[in-house]
Amino acid sequence: MTPQENYHDWLRDAHAMEKQAESMLNAMSSRIDNYPDLRARIEQHLTETQGQIKLLETVMDRNDINRSLMKDATSKMAAMGQSFGGMFAPDEIVKGAISSYVFEQFEIACYTSLITAAEKAGDSASIDIFKQILAEEKAMAEWAINHIPDVTEQFLLRSAAEGVEAKK
Amino acid sequence: MTPQENYHDWLRDAHAMEKQAESMLNAMSSRIDNYPDLRARIEQHLTETQGQIKLLETVMDRNDINRSLMKDATSKMAAMGQSFGGMFAPDEIVKGAISSYVFEQFEIACYTSLITAAEKAGDSASIDIFKQILAEEKAMAEWAINHIPDVTEQFLLRSAAEGVEAKK
Repeated sequence: MTPQENYHDWLRDAHAMEKQAESMLNAMSSRIDNYPDLRARIEQHLTETQGQIKLLETVMDRNDINRSLMKDATSKMAAMGQSFGGMFAPDEIVKGAISSYVFEQFEIACYTSLITAAEKAGDSASIDIFKQILAEEKAMAEWAINHIPDVTEQFLLRSAAEGVEAKK
Repeated sequence: MTPQENYHDWLRDAHAMEKQAESMLNAMSSRIDNYPDLRARIEQHLTETQGQIKLLETVMDRNDINRSLMKDATSKMAAMGQSFGGMFAPDEIVKGAISSYVFEQFEIACYTSLITAAEKAGDSASIDIFKQILAEEKAMAEWAINHIPDVTEQFLLRSAAEGVEAKK
């Protein structure tokens, strides 16, 4: 396969990944009741993710990639996203905070690879877009890891209290 | 639930996570033929992971956690690990390099939460162990992200060449 063919496959994967991120962030933010800081940051990143999807679509259009052929990749990614979930577990909020961080790191790894692929495939016009998206993913990942101790502590306090919902 | 009960559940999860890491690293290192740097680093981390499992078992013993009850958690984690795989895909080595990084980040997030839980559950004797493990996971994650561009580039070169295996 040529570098361009591999690169185009990975662009489709990236688009599917962001669509999955959108679903996961949407589901998480709508379920969180008692952890307002986490909810607010997730909502902010949901908006960023919707912008990233539009940016990726400009890259795909520039590379003549037919977006109607992308269902397969999307469903493969969906399985991965769901396994991250831990949703509905008694410690859902802690698992969710961990999953948010891990999914951002997955995105960071994919864009790191994609930047190399864009260089080798000669699509230098798209590299700044990937770097811009990467910066947003890194900011979200950093926020998430910095807040895991706080979410864990709040969960433990709520979990130990009578008549208080802890899980979400 | 008390902080101790939640903490003990998470210790079981951490043990299952490391057992799963051991399986994944083992499977990856035995499949890689053409990417010796990645293979060597994975083998090193496999040895580290086996040491981490022993360390976690000392923590579990100190907390009187019965290790024979841990099968459930292990099988839950196995599903997650497999979905990370991308193994046997034509771009297996690139997906594998990404997965290695992402799984390390999953471990980093879990130990970050576990350190808070150990503090709140009063198991301060175990915190240095978690910090030691965390340092090894961070070193592996940093190595992995720094080598993703190189693995991507090597894969693209091999993939474009006639009669050369690229995938593993």
